[in-house]
This record gives sequence, structure tokens and C-alpha cells, in this order.
Amino acid sequence: MKLTYLNNTFLPEENAYLHISDLAIQRGYGIFDFLRVIDNHPLFLEHYLNRFYASAKEMLLEVPYEREKLTAIILDLIERNNLPVSGVKIILTGGYSPDAYQMVKPNLIITQQALSLSTTSFPKAGIKVITHEFVREMPGVKTINYLTGIRMQQRVLEQQAADVLYHQRGIVSEFPRCNFFMITQDSVVVTPSENILHGITRKNVIELASKKFKVEQRNISVEEIKTAKEAFLTSTTKRILPITQIDSAIIGNGLPGSMTEILFNDLVTLEEQELKALTRK
Amino acid sequence: MKLTYLNNTFLPEENAYLHISDLAIQRGYGIFDFLRVIDNHPLFLEHYLNRFYASAKEMLLEVPYEREKLTAIILDLIERNNLPVSGVKIILTGGYSPDAYQMVKPNLIITQQALSLSTTSFPKAGIKVITHEFVREMPGVKTINYLTGIRMQQRVLEQQAADVLYHQRGIVSEFPRCNFFMITQDSVVVTPSENILHGITRKNVIELASKKFKVEQRNISVEEIKTAKEAFLTSTTKRILPITQIDSAIIGNGLPGSMTEILFNDLVTLEEQELKALTRK
Repeated sequence: MKLTYLNNTFLPEENAYLHISDLAIQRGYGIFDFLRVIDNHPLFLEHYLNRFYASAKEMLLEVPYEREKLTAIILDLIERNNLPVSGVKIILTGGYSPDAYQMVKPNLIITQQALSLSTTSFPKAGIKVITHEFVREMPGVKTINYLTGIRMQQRVLEQQAADVLYHQRGIVSEFPRCNFFMITQDSVVVTPSENILHGITRKNVIELASKKFKVEQRNISVEEIKTAKEAFLTSTTKRILPITQIDSAIIGNGLPGSMTEILFNDLVTLEEQELKALTRK
Repeated sequence: MKLTYLNNTFLPEENAYLHISDLAIQRGYGIFDFLRVIDNHPLFLEHYLNRFYASAKEMLLEVPYEREKLTAIILDLIERNNLPVSGVKIILTGGYSPDAYQMVKPNLIITQQALSLSTTSFPKAGIKVITHEFVREMPGVKTINYLTGIRMQQRVLEQQAADVLYHQRGIVSEFPRCNFFMITQDSVVVTPSENILHGITRKNVIELASKKFKVEQRNISVEEIKTAKEAFLTSTTKRILPITQIDSAIIGNGLPGSMTEILFNDLVTLEEQELKALTRK
């Protein structure tokens, strides 16, 4: 029986309910974060918690627990559930509002989901993505608002694509749940710097890439990405996923690129090192 | 005991819960509408239902009931609760999503809240509002996303204001939950035409104003509103509320205006006529 943590109790996930007066249901008001667990160890937990507390602060929500206590709850949940390869999601909502508008004591939800073991071998095929003009309301904050991302899913499927890349007036930003990277014809690794959520995997990839390549964080136009030698997206669950088509433009030779492969392997190694360090503790 | 309608059942409001897998909680995905009840009659129900079904369609959510059946449920709830002066809120969410992203069978929630009887005499004092650069994600759709509106409440209070008026690059749109009107020095009634939710009270006021005055629906700049002879906001619960200060600018002579008063009285009369027609049915 899988457990969820709700406010101050562990309870079976199927019994985890919020009253309809919650401000997430009434007004879509909440923040969250999502991290990955391997061998029952949460990877890069400190970075995810940094972002979670920063999002809460930005949205004027008080996290009911100090960092140390919240960490202990997450580790406790992981131990109780024993889902060695999984994801942990932490949601904080605006609480049970008496007038459906005023923020009150937030509701905290921590859930855990088994993930299919993502392979550590580099994908043999890339994905197609489409572009769409949109910028998220507060791009730097991990709010629960995915109205446009979810609404776009139908068009993504119709176009036989895997995801949708946002841009505003021709400047590329991010995917609904992933960051974007490209590699220029002269082998510079470039990723957008504005109107994005600062992904933890993005941060790790920038650090890894900086050791071997030239890296730039800057504005990238929709035209420029279509001239890329290689392109890929990063996310907590997907690690690095090669992109071989953007709208109708084929990227590079239409196959996952060699620099993307190097970064993928470096990321897998980084995860293994993190895991070793956690096991030793 | 106040009742709520949830999916296909009437139940006590305090027992109305959604499982945490609902897409409103996970991704802020949902739409709603809100209408007013007087003497146990819902006012302008057809218009609110038109908008509710239009919002659902735009967000690719299927309303589980045809219009006639949904109307019957709303009337049934009103009869059971017997809250003569009240508001009815209809929420439709993305449903219990297995992967916290995919839309599934929506959850329908209908709640009713007693409202303090709003006076039918014209307010003797106006309100102060502040301005803020922002445009809602899908302004024409009544989604549950109020991230910015709720987050701004603290600044509204700090500034001793009653509400916040959005503009984008200097062009005024709307308040988080109300529409904006101004009256120019030469007595033209003007209301923004773009990036707004089409309020039912706004529609009624435009129709009433057109019988007596010149009315324009067009872009209005932040500079222009500060030169207004009169200004007011409209909403379902607030009817017409005179605005006498915008940021630091005093509107007119700092008191509610005479044309605003005429429109307020005409709106009260229209409600009385609607109520009479409903009672006769």
C-alpha cells in the first residue's frame, strides 16, 4: 500500500483528499517540486529543496516545516514506500480558504510514484518538437499552473511530436516541463537564459558541459535553433533527450548528436557519483 | 446543513473532497463560473451557462451534463439549500489524472454561498485601485488561474487599495475578478475591448448605457484613465462600484459620479425586471 504524506500524517494514497475549499481547486494557487529517487536515495535533494522553498517564498506561502524536518519526512516516506526507482512530488497549496480567494495555512502534500527505470544507454533516436508562442506567468517559479501545456497536448499529438517549445516574439524559452539546449555548428553549447524555470538537470548539464565545451546562456531565436548541429531537452525524469526535428526542420543529420551523447554519459556518471556519495553517508 | 453537488451527488459541503490526483491540485487545470441568486432565483443564468460551456470547450473539458440537466441540478441545489441571497459557483477540473498531466473525465463541483445582501442604494464613497502590468494567460476564458491576482493582494492591502487594475504595455484590461469602465470628460462611457473576460454584468451595463449615452469598447491607456470624469468597476457580486482614485490620481472630484449613479440604478432596475420575469415563470 503506497503512502502519501498530507499535512502531518502518512496515509494510503487512495485516501489522500483535499476539501474543495482548497485554493488550488478554487484558484489554481500552489507550488510544487519533483525529484528522482534511485536505490531509495533522493538525488540532488538539496537543490530541489532550495527551489521549493524559493517558490514558496515567491508565492507568499509558508512551508509548514523547516528544511531539516521536511527532509526527514521525505526520507521517511521513501523508506516506508520502498519504491527504489521513483519520483517524489511535494505540493504546497494556498490552503482551505474561507472566501475562495484569501491565502490561509497552506496544505502540504508529498506523494511518491514508481518510475520506469530510465535506461543509462544513450537513445538511438531523437524526438520531434513543435514551437508555440507563449511565456509562462511566472517562469522562474515552479507554480502548479500548466493550463497552456496541458491544453497544447492535443496539438502535440496531432503533429506527432513529443513536446512543445515555447517562444515569445521569436525568442525561445523552455518546454512546459523541460529545458532546451542546442549545439551550434561551431560546437558551442547554448541554452536560453530568460523566461525559464531553472531546472536542476539544466544546472547539472551546464556544469558538466563547461568542463569540456564552450557554454553560453543567452537569447536564442526560433530561426537559430533550426540551424543547430544538435539539440536536446533536459528534465529530472528524462535526463537528456535528443531532439532531431523542430517543426519541419531536421536537426543535424536527423540522428542524436555526438556531443549530446557525451553530455548524456557525463550526466549518468554524475548521478552515479551522487548515488555513491549518498550510500556512503 | 449546506449542500454541495459533486459529480453526481448532493452531499454536505463539509464532506466535499477531491482526491489529490485531480488535475486542479496537480496542475491548476480547471474552469468555473459564478452567478448570483436572489429570492432563490438565479439571475441571468443563460448568460452564465453560455460562458461556462464556452470556457469548457476552449479548455477541451467535456461538461458531464447537457445544459438542460445542468440547469435542473443548479435549481435543485438552490431549492435544497434555501439561501435566498447567495452565489452559485460551478467548477470543472481536469479530473483524476493517472499521470498528473493527462486530462481525463472532469470533476464537476457546484457550491452555494450566502452573500451579504448588497444594497440597492448607490454607494456614497468610491474605492481606490492600483495598477499593475500583467495580462492573464487566456483572458477570454474563465479558468481557475488566479496566481497573480491572489499574490497581488498583499500589495493591494499595503497600498490601502481595494483592487488592482491590470495593463499591458500601458493598455488597461481588467481587474482579477471585475471589469473596468470610465467616463470621459465629454461623457462617453468607455470600457476595454481586449485581453478581458467578458463579464455578464459588463454586458448588461454596456446595453443599459447604450440607451442613454455614447458607449465605446476600445483600448484605453493608463494615462487616459487618470483623466476620467468618472470610473467604476463591474462584477456579479459587486454590481457597479465607483472608483475615485487610481494610483495617486483622484478621479473627478473624488466622489462617485452622477452618470455612474444612473447606470447603477438602471442595473438594479434590470435585476428587478429579471427577477419579476423569473417569478412569473
